Amino acid sequence: MKDAPRLYVEASLSGGAQFDATPEQAHYLSNVMRLTAGSEITLFNGHDGEWRGEIAETGKKRATLRSTDLLRPQAAEPDLWLVFALVKRSAVDLIVEKATELGVSKLLPVITERTNASRTGEERLRAIAVEAAEQCERLSVPEILPAQSFNKLLTSWEPTRILYSMDETGAGRPIAEVLAGAAPGPAALLIGPEGGFAKSELDALDRLAFATRVGLGPRVLRAETAVIAALACFQAIRGDWRQSSS
Amino acid sequence: MKDAPRLYVEASLSGGAQFDATPEQAHYLSNVMRLTAGSEITLFNGHDGEWRGEIAETGKKRATLRSTDLLRPQAAEPDLWLVFALVKRSAVDLIVEKATELGVSKLLPVITERTNASRTGEERLRAIAVEAAEQCERLSVPEILPAQSFNKLLTSWEPTRILYSMDETGAGRPIAEVLAGAAPGPAALLIGPEGGFAKSELDALDRLAFATRVGLGPRVLRAETAVIAALACFQAIRGDWRQSSS
Repeated sequence: MKDAPRLYVEASLSGGAQFDATPEQAHYLSNVMRLTAGSEITLFNGHDGEWRGEIAETGKKRATLRSTDLLRPQAAEPDLWLVFALVKRSAVDLIVEKATELGVSKLLPVITERTNASRTGEERLRAIAVEAAEQCERLSVPEILPAQSFNKLLTSWEPTRILYSMDETGAGRPIAEVLAGAAPGPAALLIGPEGGFAKSELDALDRLAFATRVGLGPRVLRAETAVIAALACFQAIRGDWRQSSS
Repeated sequence: MKDAPRLYVEASLSGGAQFDATPEQAHYLSNVMRLTAGSEITLFNGHDGEWRGEIAETGKKRATLRSTDLLRPQAAEPDLWLVFALVKRSAVDLIVEKATELGVSKLLPVITERTNASRTGEERLRAIAVEAAEQCERLSVPEILPAQSFNKLLTSWEPTRILYSMDETGAGRPIAEVLAGAAPGPAALLIGPEGGFAKSELDALDRLAFATRVGLGPRVLRAETAVIAALACFQAIRGDWRQSSS
């Protein structure tokens, strides 16, 4: 059923498992969707696969859910990280939503020299990622780290993970060319702040063997556009868009 | 000067040309940016290239602008159309903004069988495209057609322009594979409504030699995500992101 609400839950899922919905989910099911006991739902929790389920019981501000049949076993999702400098709130919200749809496994907000913001509102971002995961039929919700210093992140970086840095200065090689020639393995995309990286940050990146500058064409892209564009190119050329999905 | 406001104008641009700003531009320059006569600006009009200019005079709710020196000659921009089914207003706004940043030359909103909306608010969309063009340093503003019937559009389509149709059914070949093997020439991307195309519309597309279905991976993308993703892949693989920009 395409129209059954698809919900991310914390509970373990198995045949006949029963558990409480969150108050927000209960409100959504009862008051927004106007569903009652017996209505079909779809459930996932990031590790037990996707399950058909139903509303077992609804009460005032609460609902009990039940998983019944496995629809899809849990499958590996792309090992793709996104490192992004904090930008204005509406852009961060869009980045989290679109990165979830585009299959990012971990989001790492960073604070660079030219970053103004320092707070991420982690709970809000988590809610956005959950909603996007429910909607796009992912089997997982990406992990979102607290904001950290960009310099510190580079210092602790595991060098087997290639870091593709989106370069606004025009010094990067075209993204399709870089990705087509890239070795397989874990990867991360990096998008800087609206004002660009500081020279010292670019120099630091250039000294790292795991970091590669890539270019996104002749126009100046807003940070959130660069994120979506780069993720799409990655999935199309190196990621899980290379197989037909049916 | 990176910080000089960049304005799209209707007037012809040449050394010493002088003309009135629109009331909105006058308000922006005087009241938002707090600039006065003599302040530097950057100007483009879609056909005379990009010009350095200045504010010649400001008055109450008006401003006179002057172009002084050519910064960049007009250059051909990609011949890339975007056909998109009308979706909800916030998504349409995002589509217009991002398509402008990503180098689309013409936007063609269409009404399909499962499209609920029928009005585009052309003036609002034009304003969004102008602002995005100013910001992303394009030399032109994309043309935005009034909404039209999808069936009619297909009937009058010039068959030399390949129409890449984003396919949510999983029947399309992976986008990178399709684009890597595509012949050069004029192209258009097509994104359907949230509910997908009707069967009769998909059948009609399949009968057209100029239309090719392409897939955007295993997750379900919102319409606006599909637009940005497909445009990025096109520019990266077939378009003007293939050369380093410097």
